[in-house]
Amino acid sequence: MQSKNAKSLNLIHFVSVDDMMKIVLEIGVEKTIAGVAAQIEHDFRRWALFDKTPRLAAHSDHGVIELMPTSDGEVYAFKYVNGHPKNMKEGLQTVTAFGVLSDVGTGYPVLLSEMTILTAIRTAATSAMAAKVLAPAGARCMAMIGNGAQSEFQAMAFKTLLGIDTLRLYDIDSYATDKCAANLANRGFQIIKCASAKEATEGAQIITTCTADKQYATILTDDMVGAGVHINAIGGDCPGKTELQREILLRSDIFVEYTPQTRIEGDIQQLPADHPVTELWTVMTGDAPGRTHAEQITVFDGVGFAIEDFSALRYLHAQLEATGHFERLDMIADPNEPRDLWGMVMRAAKTASKAA
Amino acid sequence: MQSKNAKSLNLIHFVSVDDMMKIVLEIGVEKTIAGVAAQIEHDFRRWALFDKTPRLAAHSDHGVIELMPTSDGEVYAFKYVNGHPKNMKEGLQTVTAFGVLSDVGTGYPVLLSEMTILTAIRTAATSAMAAKVLAPAGARCMAMIGNGAQSEFQAMAFKTLLGIDTLRLYDIDSYATDKCAANLANRGFQIIKCASAKEATEGAQIITTCTADKQYATILTDDMVGAGVHINAIGGDCPGKTELQREILLRSDIFVEYTPQTRIEGDIQQLPADHPVTELWTVMTGDAPGRTHAEQITVFDGVGFAIEDFSALRYLHAQLEATGHFERLDMIADPNEPRDLWGMVMRAAKTASKAA
Repeated sequence: MQSKNAKSLNLIHFVSVDDMMKIVLEIGVEKTIAGVAAQIEHDFRRWALFDKTPRLAAHSDHGVIELMPTSDGEVYAFKYVNGHPKNMKEGLQTVTAFGVLSDVGTGYPVLLSEMTILTAIRTAATSAMAAKVLAPAGARCMAMIGNGAQSEFQAMAFKTLLGIDTLRLYDIDSYATDKCAANLANRGFQIIKCASAKEATEGAQIITTCTADKQYATILTDDMVGAGVHINAIGGDCPGKTELQREILLRSDIFVEYTPQTRIEGDIQQLPADHPVTELWTVMTGDAPGRTHAEQITVFDGVGFAIEDFSALRYLHAQLEATGHFERLDMIADPNEPRDLWGMVMRAAKTASKAA
Repeated sequence: MQSKNAKSLNLIHFVSVDDMMKIVLEIGVEKTIAGVAAQIEHDFRRWALFDKTPRLAAHSDHGVIELMPTSDGEVYAFKYVNGHPKNMKEGLQTVTAFGVLSDVGTGYPVLLSEMTILTAIRTAATSAMAAKVLAPAGARCMAMIGNGAQSEFQAMAFKTLLGIDTLRLYDIDSYATDKCAANLANRGFQIIKCASAKEATEGAQIITTCTADKQYATILTDDMVGAGVHINAIGGDCPGKTELQREILLRSDIFVEYTPQTRIEGDIQQLPADHPVTELWTVMTGDAPGRTHAEQITVFDGVGFAIEDFSALRYLHAQLEATGHFERLDMIADPNEPRDLWGMVMRAAKTASKAA
């Protein structure tokens, strides 16, 4: 009656937090980041194929809950992600996420995955991918302002993809800096804990800002940014939340993921809506230049875009068979006859009463 | 270290298809439909509190995948739902769905549920809730054109909430009619299988159209609709997909869920954008009249709105403790220290190697 194909479609692959940790550890963090970055670069190169829309955000006084869908016409993906800066003080994650991959042909979901860890990986992978074409040649030293949950992933991505080996860390909470430094010990970095953001930026060719709190709106001031620096600004990702002093932006070349979304959420929300920016995918395809000279200040105003989650989920999906770290979830109703949903529910009663 | 509260938040409630069937059967279909209808009515009465947006649709040649979010400021919900009319021929569901309920305060999801069955229930509950204020007094006979997966749920909702006891069934595929009639046998209905849509409508005080296929755009023609009838049109729910001949709409009073969405998706996409319609919630609050006289033709142009899913998920969530039919899903990363996501992943390696 029912095709074998239909039979298996009702059980979707589920990657739990535990599964995700096992997958990342089995493949290796560096290799996972590199793999996700390669997939993002691949998908950015076929940018025109994707349905693109600014994410759908539900704002409240507490934070934001967002849905980020996209599709390349064959595969559909969306991510659910929240941003609640106040959560940290309550022992909760500022950002948690999960995502789904679906088959456009049937509309059936095929994969449900935790994405708190995967988002950290894809965010770091995107930053490093951008820095590959924007950072000054031979950059070895990176300042990291904000040493929270995203910081170690950023550091490892920049080590893996760019060869960064010196980190200058600063956080308004020295506990975060100590945690970050301890986590990255024995990973091949020289680590310098700094007493201020200004000190952290000294001698750094790359400055990464990844802060979470809305109330510190100027993480980086104009005097901290010398010629030739690349700024990887990923914490300004919400209306009203920015990290860079406006003057920095005015003397920089600015690169973004998807302009309509970054105008709303990124550091460029401080600028007029017609201020020129370059979409990163055009650099990936060779249609626009990345860094053009040594004195240039470049800014990647990263806010996170749905295609990056699409890429990360596709990378993950491709790893499942080999690693075996997933479960199957009974999430799609699958009556023998598709029009007999009612009959399926009622037959469950007979099964239950037989069993009883 | 970690609060007990935080500890439990990483495991979200999951209601599988099997769980959903058990819950519906344990509570009883009629009581479930009535409970969901009561929750929808409750939430429609506080309409102004909700974030409202037309659903976010990804269209393809094969069908559509939609995300439907809403929030009342305390609870956030979204549903993922596809619509693939061609699926049926491949032994798959035309519509499958799942949904999530979240805490706006933390952004953490608290419930993930199958919603293919729950959508059928909430759609039927909404239709019957509308008919309570729109159908002619004392209606006992309903025509149902389209006898697919939604039809039995509609019939039971109209029996439970309005006392409908006579059904006149028609489907272009007589198998669907036979299936519907067989499923509803011994449920207290007099059932008449009809050979045409026109025959089905004869003597019916309520006409329900719930067809799925895009290619049959005029299910109901003007000559089939006499004075005083209530039309429950729920199959026209997609751009380019309508069920009613335009002339019917022109001599009817039209009631909708959320006007901006119904203008795009409902039968009223055939009408000018300023054609007057009444939002159903205003009837629920008493701000607008429902049916005002016996000769009036009323149309509920139902397309399905996010608040109905919100209501259905809230109803479901409230049943979980008593029924016990749910699992807990490890979907939210929960490091001991919220900023130490990296450390959590790395500690998993130590646990794994200890176990090995």
